Amino acid sequence: MTRLADLVEQLPDGRVLTDPDVAASYSRDQTFLVPGKPLGVVAAETRDDVVTTMRWATEHRVPVVPRGAGTGLAGGATAVDGCVMLSLARMTAVRELSPADEIAVVEPGVITADLDRAAREHGLMYAPDPSSYEISTIGGNLATNAGGLRCVKYGVTRDSTLGLEVVLADGRVLRTGRRTMKGVTGYDLTGLFVGSEGTLGVITSATLRLRRAPAVPPATVAAEFPSLRAAGDAVAAIIASGCQPSLLELMDRNTLKAIDDWKNIGLEPGVQAMLIGQAEGSLPGNAEAMARLCEQNGASFVAVSTSPEETEELIGIRRLAYNAKERLGACLVEDVCVPRSALPDMISAVEAAAVRHDTLICTVAHAGDGNLHPVFVFDRGLPEPPPNVWAAADEVFRAALALGGTLTGEHGVGVLKRRWLDLESGPLVDEVQRGIKQVFDPLGILNPGKAI
Amino acid sequence: MTRLADLVEQLPDGRVLTDPDVAASYSRDQTFLVPGKPLGVVAAETRDDVVTTMRWATEHRVPVVPRGAGTGLAGGATAVDGCVMLSLARMTAVRELSPADEIAVVEPGVITADLDRAAREHGLMYAPDPSSYEISTIGGNLATNAGGLRCVKYGVTRDSTLGLEVVLADGRVLRTGRRTMKGVTGYDLTGLFVGSEGTLGVITSATLRLRRAPAVPPATVAAEFPSLRAAGDAVAAIIASGCQPSLLELMDRNTLKAIDDWKNIGLEPGVQAMLIGQAEGSLPGNAEAMARLCEQNGASFVAVSTSPEETEELIGIRRLAYNAKERLGACLVEDVCVPRSALPDMISAVEAAAVRHDTLICTVAHAGDGNLHPVFVFDRGLPEPPPNVWAAADEVFRAALALGGTLTGEHGVGVLKRRWLDLESGPLVDEVQRGIKQVFDPLGILNPGKAI
Repeated sequence: MTRLADLVEQLPDGRVLTDPDVAASYSRDQTFLVPGKPLGVVAAETRDDVVTTMRWATEHRVPVVPRGAGTGLAGGATAVDGCVMLSLARMTAVRELSPADEIAVVEPGVITADLDRAAREHGLMYAPDPSSYEISTIGGNLATNAGGLRCVKYGVTRDSTLGLEVVLADGRVLRTGRRTMKGVTGYDLTGLFVGSEGTLGVITSATLRLRRAPAVPPATVAAEFPSLRAAGDAVAAIIASGCQPSLLELMDRNTLKAIDDWKNIGLEPGVQAMLIGQAEGSLPGNAEAMARLCEQNGASFVAVSTSPEETEELIGIRRLAYNAKERLGACLVEDVCVPRSALPDMISAVEAAAVRHDTLICTVAHAGDGNLHPVFVFDRGLPEPPPNVWAAADEVFRAALALGGTLTGEHGVGVLKRRWLDLESGPLVDEVQRGIKQVFDPLGILNPGKAI
Repeated sequence: MTRLADLVEQLPDGRVLTDPDVAASYSRDQTFLVPGKPLGVVAAETRDDVVTTMRWATEHRVPVVPRGAGTGLAGGATAVDGCVMLSLARMTAVRELSPADEIAVVEPGVITADLDRAAREHGLMYAPDPSSYEISTIGGNLATNAGGLRCVKYGVTRDSTLGLEVVLADGRVLRTGRRTMKGVTGYDLTGLFVGSEGTLGVITSATLRLRRAPAVPPATVAAEFPSLRAAGDAVAAIIASGCQPSLLELMDRNTLKAIDDWKNIGLEPGVQAMLIGQAEGSLPGNAEAMARLCEQNGASFVAVSTSPEETEELIGIRRLAYNAKERLGACLVEDVCVPRSALPDMISAVEAAAVRHDTLICTVAHAGDGNLHPVFVFDRGLPEPPPNVWAAADEVFRAALALGGTLTGEHGVGVLKRRWLDLESGPLVDEVQRGIKQVFDPLGILNPGKAI
C-alpha cells in the first residue's frame, strides 16, 4: 500500500483528491511561481480530518502545505514536491456569532466578506478587508495576517483575533487565547500563529473580534493629482493633520490606465494619481479637511460625497486594481510598508526604479498605513520575472528598508521575499525563529521552505 | 573574588547595589508575597549594562529578575533566592517622538504617564493607562501587557507596541518588529515578548504607537445604583447598545466606602455601586444614551458632564481605589476577565463568594472590557491570605473560567496565579510554552518560576 493509500483509508470518502489535474489546481497561489508536484490533496471538512492528516504526515514524514482559497501573493501556499496540499476551504461554518460579546467563532474556510455580511445583520462588522475579501478565506487571512483597506483605522487580522484552535504537526489539538477582550495568561501563542503562514500548525477554528459598524455611511473624498509625488505629499499632510481617515487609498496612473482600459472609468489625460479617502460618519468634518489638504497639495480635481452609491463605485474601482493589472501580463507584487512620513520618498524611489530598469510598475497603496503595492508587470510567456524586473524589485525593497520600512506589510514572506529576509531581520532573528519552528514542528513537515 | 564582585568590576561605578536593606527594597512588588534574598541589585543605566549583566549571569548561572517600578500585583518581579534584581528604572530616555509617524522610541524606565504627557504636547497620546500609570514604567507595562481605563477603546499595551530591542539571556541583542504601522516579516516576536513577564528577555527599548488625542474633552456619565448587579446589567446594556464608550468603570460599595473613609466623597447610604462612563467628543450623543441605559437599569442617580474639572475629579476617585483599599489591610488582587455579557453573572459570583467565605471583597472593574478586580482584604499581620480568602479567591477564579473567562486580564500570572494555570491552559499549552522558554533561555536564568 502506498503511503497516500493509507491516508485515503483513514479519511472519509471523497476527502483525498488524487487526480493530477485536480491536484495541480490546488498547488499554486496567485503568483507566477511554478509549484512542486504534490502527492495529492486533502479537502478537509472537519477538525478530525486535519488531525488524521497530520498524524499520518508525521508518521510518514510527508510535508503538508495548508491552503485556503489560493489568493496569496507571495507563494506561501505553493506546493513542494511530494507534499500533501491540505485545503481548509470546505470548513465554512460560522459556529457562533455573539452580538452581545461582539465575537464570532468560525472555521478557516469561511470567506472573509461572508463573515462581514453576517456580522452586519447585527450592526457589527468584521473589520479586516484585504482587496481579495470576496474570494479569500479567514484561514488564509490568519496565515498572512492580512490587512486591507479598513485597517488604517481598525488594524490588521491579528488585531481582530482573540483565540485559535490549532492542529499541531503531530496531530495534537492546541487551544490558544480566549473569548474575552483582554487576557494575559501565558505567552501570546495566538499572535504567534497569526502571520506564521502555516509553518507552525493548522488553524481549524478562530475566535474573532467584531466591531460596531459605523452608524451612518462614511463621507468619501476623491482627488486627482498631476503627479504621484503630489498625492504622496497630500497623504503625509492628511496623516500629520490628525484627520484620522478610516480609509486612504492611492492609485498611480499606470493602475488607473489599466482599470480605464478594462472598465472605461473616463480617465483624463493629465491625471497621474488618484487618492480616495474616507472619514466615518461621526467625523464628517474630516472629509472636508482631507479635501482641503488635497487642494493645498496640488490636486487638480477634488470631490466629497456622502452618497453610498458613489462611495461604492469609488471603492469598487480601487478593488478592481489587481485584476486590471493581471490583464497586462504576469505580475510580481510587492508589499513594502514605510513610516507614513516617508511615503512621498518611497513613491519617488518606485518611480526611479521603474525608469532606471525600464520596467512597468503599477502602484496602489494603502496610503494611510504607508503600505505600497508596486506591481511589476512582465511578459506572461516568461517562466519568471526577467533580470530587469528583479533588479527593480530589489531596488524598491532596499529603498523601503533604508526609509525605516519593511519588506511586507500584509502579504507575507512566502517564497518570494525570502531572498531579502536577511536584509531586514538578520541572523539572530532567523536563529530565534528557527528555534520556535523546532518547538512546533520538529520534523519540519509544515509548509517547509516558507516564511522564515 | 565572589561572583558578584566580578560583576561589580565589569560595570561602571554605582550600578551594583549590595546593601542588604537597599536590595530588600528592590525585591518585592505590591503583593504580600515574601520575596527571596537577592545577591544584589543592578541599576542599569544603558543597554550595555544589561548586556554585561546577562553575559555575567549566563557565565555564572545566576537567576536575573528584571524589574521596573515594582508596582506589579501578581508577584512577577519578586526576588528569588540568590538572584540579581535587574532594575531598568534609571533608563528613562524618550529617544524619539515623531508626530508625523505617530510613534515614540523609549527606554523601559520611562514612567507611563510621562510619555503620555510628552505625546500630548503634539496632540497625541500614549493610550495604555493602567491605574498605576503615574508610578509604573513602560517596561513593567510591556512585561505584563498592561491595560487600563482607556483600553476599552484603544486596546492594551501590546496593541501599542510596534517593535522592541531585547537583551537575550546570553547577552545578545535582538531587534524585533518595526517602525511601520503594519508588517508581517517573520513571526510576531514583538507580541511574544509583551506579556512574557521578563522570562524571555530584557526589554531595553520599545517603539510604541501613539494615537491622536481626542480633539474635545469627553462627556462623562456618573451613575449610582442600589445594587451591584443592577450596575452590571447597565454595563451589559451599554455594550449591547453599541454606545462604544471610551471608558467604563465600575466600583462596588466596599470600594466606594474605602475611598469615602479616606477622602470623604459624600457617599450616600443606599448606594451599592457607581459607574463612570465616557464617550469621546466626536460621539457626544453616546454619553446621553449611556445615561438613559443607566436609568433604565435602575440607577438612583445619573449625571452627565462635559466639564473637564468634574471629569478629572470623577476619574481621580476611580484612580484612588487601589490605595484606598490598601488602607484596609493586606490585599490579594484578582484580575479576572469574562465575556462582557457575562459581567452581571460574574459580579453575582463575587458577591456569593464573599458571603460564603466571610471575606471582605472590594471590587472595581474595567467594566467595558469585562475585566474585574476583586480585591480580597485580610489582616496585615498575617504572612499570607488565610484559608477562607484563598477559598473565596479559588471560587472566583473558577467562576470566571466557567463563564468563558480568563484568570488575568492585564496584571499577569506572576507567582500568585500559577496554581490555577492548569485550569485555564492545560498541559499542551504548558508544554509549548516551556519549549518557547527553552529557545530563549536554555539555562532558565530569566525570572525563574514566574508566568508559565
